[in-house]
Amino acid sequence: MVNQFFYPKTIAVIGATADPKKFGNAVTMNLLENKNLQSEIFPINPKSELILGLKSYPSILEIEQKIDLAILLVPAKAVPIVVDQCVEKQVKRIIIISAGFGEINEEGKQLEREMVRKVQEVGSKIIGPNCVGIMNLDIGLNASFVLTPLKGHVSMVTQSGSFGAACLYEMWWQGLGFSKFANLGNMADVNLTNLLEYFKDDKDTEVVCIYLESVIDGRAFYNKMKEVANIKPTVILKGGRTIAGMKSASSHTGSIATDYTSLKAAIKQSGATLCESLMDYITAIKAFSFLPLPKGKRIGILTNSGGSAVLFSDNAEEFGLEIAEFSKDFEEKISPFLIPLVKKVNPLDMIAGADGEAYYNVTKAMLENPEIDIVVPCAVIPTFLEMKPDEHFLGVIKAWNETGRKKPILPIFMSGSLLKHVKGIAEDEKVPIFISPKEAAFAAKVLLDRAKKLQK
Amino acid sequence: MVNQFFYPKTIAVIGATADPKKFGNAVTMNLLENKNLQSEIFPINPKSELILGLKSYPSILEIEQKIDLAILLVPAKAVPIVVDQCVEKQVKRIIIISAGFGEINEEGKQLEREMVRKVQEVGSKIIGPNCVGIMNLDIGLNASFVLTPLKGHVSMVTQSGSFGAACLYEMWWQGLGFSKFANLGNMADVNLTNLLEYFKDDKDTEVVCIYLESVIDGRAFYNKMKEVANIKPTVILKGGRTIAGMKSASSHTGSIATDYTSLKAAIKQSGATLCESLMDYITAIKAFSFLPLPKGKRIGILTNSGGSAVLFSDNAEEFGLEIAEFSKDFEEKISPFLIPLVKKVNPLDMIAGADGEAYYNVTKAMLENPEIDIVVPCAVIPTFLEMKPDEHFLGVIKAWNETGRKKPILPIFMSGSLLKHVKGIAEDEKVPIFISPKEAAFAAKVLLDRAKKLQK
Repeated sequence: MVNQFFYPKTIAVIGATADPKKFGNAVTMNLLENKNLQSEIFPINPKSELILGLKSYPSILEIEQKIDLAILLVPAKAVPIVVDQCVEKQVKRIIIISAGFGEINEEGKQLEREMVRKVQEVGSKIIGPNCVGIMNLDIGLNASFVLTPLKGHVSMVTQSGSFGAACLYEMWWQGLGFSKFANLGNMADVNLTNLLEYFKDDKDTEVVCIYLESVIDGRAFYNKMKEVANIKPTVILKGGRTIAGMKSASSHTGSIATDYTSLKAAIKQSGATLCESLMDYITAIKAFSFLPLPKGKRIGILTNSGGSAVLFSDNAEEFGLEIAEFSKDFEEKISPFLIPLVKKVNPLDMIAGADGEAYYNVTKAMLENPEIDIVVPCAVIPTFLEMKPDEHFLGVIKAWNETGRKKPILPIFMSGSLLKHVKGIAEDEKVPIFISPKEAAFAAKVLLDRAKKLQK
Repeated sequence: MVNQFFYPKTIAVIGATADPKKFGNAVTMNLLENKNLQSEIFPINPKSELILGLKSYPSILEIEQKIDLAILLVPAKAVPIVVDQCVEKQVKRIIIISAGFGEINEEGKQLEREMVRKVQEVGSKIIGPNCVGIMNLDIGLNASFVLTPLKGHVSMVTQSGSFGAACLYEMWWQGLGFSKFANLGNMADVNLTNLLEYFKDDKDTEVVCIYLESVIDGRAFYNKMKEVANIKPTVILKGGRTIAGMKSASSHTGSIATDYTSLKAAIKQSGATLCESLMDYITAIKAFSFLPLPKGKRIGILTNSGGSAVLFSDNAEEFGLEIAEFSKDFEEKISPFLIPLVKKVNPLDMIAGADGEAYYNVTKAMLENPEIDIVVPCAVIPTFLEMKPDEHFLGVIKAWNETGRKKPILPIFMSGSLLKHVKGIAEDEKVPIFISPKEAAFAAKVLLDRAKKLQK
């Protein structure tokens, strides 16, 4: 059902314009710029005959072809009239980007209900109003005014459009891309549950993520979340956990923010991954996108920085992980790769002089050790002894590749301004980088939680 | 007393070498590369006559001049002999970078005690062993094997050298620089308390930061921390908060990690700023370096992203901050800068179309509003309507400059891959950027905590 929003053959942009200072331009440009998109685009604007090289129509009723998807960017007061035209034209899927409805006042809510009633009578559906739009990168569709992100296997539904944009930028920076993206705005009609249902069965969606503030249909949503989480990693961030946050959320989408305590309990029960900040949310998405699940909670840490491993150990304990004990056999196995000063205990502090070769050998030994489930290669990028800034990371990747990428690795590179030396490699090789001990420990935790859920 | 380590007129590098694969080379290069350094450098290596263009001496005893500071990079077994020579030469300050002592075993600890006893007899002092060295950027001194950071007003003492390096990279990336830096390694002689004493009175040190795992002289340390925190913002991160972390810390420096509960209580009492992760540590340093203290806890938020402001509101409440109420007067004042759709409530969601001019005007109005103590301009960088990616940030800075930078501003730019568009401006203008709501809220919290402490 929601599917039809994501695979339209014909798209009408109502409020399209050549004026780059209008959202109607941004959406039309986004639709036209991706040359892979096969859909036919129909700009609609009574004031123009030609928009960005395409014939413009005065109204959707003037188009001869059947229209699968209409995107509305007209001022709020004109929206109901245009929706009526869409109903007359039998457009099955409508996205209302325009703001100025339920998020403003009760009158706006009333208008939303009226529009939804009308479209439902002809079996049509509305996304929005007050949203940035949707995307399906699998067919090159960007039906939003946000820039086109990387293509990938993450699908996101978000109540806040600009927060979705923020995630998009952050994920891009981490080398993560989208399959589907949907910002639902005021959720007058299509809601979170509908999107979860769709993502559950969508073959291109491997990781499902949700930013929500209010759940309208409690039980249906919780049941669907559970179904999805049984099949795919499902990452959830809730805005409005506190009274201040709920107040702020209600003002912004016009709906009453859902109580966090009960939502939290439901998420826990469903086995979905709950995050409490943007950074944790991105970290969880990164972990699920790049890494296999661990078989257990025993962690092996190698480092050239004692302090960083200490901090990681703190976070690991706080997150319920376990620092593995090295066996005598394992100590002997790694011995040739270490200088005599190194104590063969976990975390294995190989001291500042450890090079890429040492990282390769020890990472590989840990990946091959059946008593270690998760390997954490931690390094402060050295700027001395003629070491290359990327040799440690390359050593780690080589070891991971040679052992078939079967266990999760969490490379921590504490690098700040030196990050540029390893970032490109991470993207090319599809390996995650974590920039702090806490981030890596959180990634280990969410992977382990999911592994445990699936073992049940 | 510790002062003399940081202002040496003559420096002997024992174990200096032209071989770039040795730490003795890295330290010598770091000393020579900064042309501002007035100190005279004496490389010591019996196997060379000339090192990096300087005359090399077979031993420190062959140098005619008085030596203020000796840096030891010889193998562990040669260290005690070289220390004896330093004592004979009456070198007052000795840094032992070489590892292989107390962090290894009891015999190593015994050796440390013996060396300290000998140098104390002649009134000399040791930093180390097992450290990366020290820096005094005020005179261009980098007596370590870590790269030279930016010059600034932060002074750091760290028990972990590589963690210090990680901070350095991260701070560089944030446009933050050092006055003094000291890694104390095993702390056989000079300890954290000595450095705090020094930073307290050092006129170039404006923000004091400490990474510690073990405190040797409990009461003295706590008293000194309190004295420092009374005068300067003092930021503390403790490695080894948990059993796993303490075990890992003990293995790494050879000393028993200090119990966290009592340390936490002492830090709280002192009014220093306690952090529990690298990122919080850097955030606190950034906040104290760039921003004035607030007069109260009332926050004004302007945003083009509702969801982001919701998340900030959640964090703000969790950190004990308060979202200010707008007065009627203030609503009228900002009205001309907003489109009619915008609800005049705090957080002020100006919606996606808000431009740099709107950010300038509203930020300024909030900075001038006596009922707002802290201003949080939050933006998801827009990529549409021909807006420039830096115009919101420039608007915010203009407003801050025009109002004399009297109130703290916490610009949140959720930008990921687009961060490059504002990062350079932040550095040039000495304005912080926060990349997530939580980071900004933590910064507000630490500033407010300090303001409250000083009001007492």
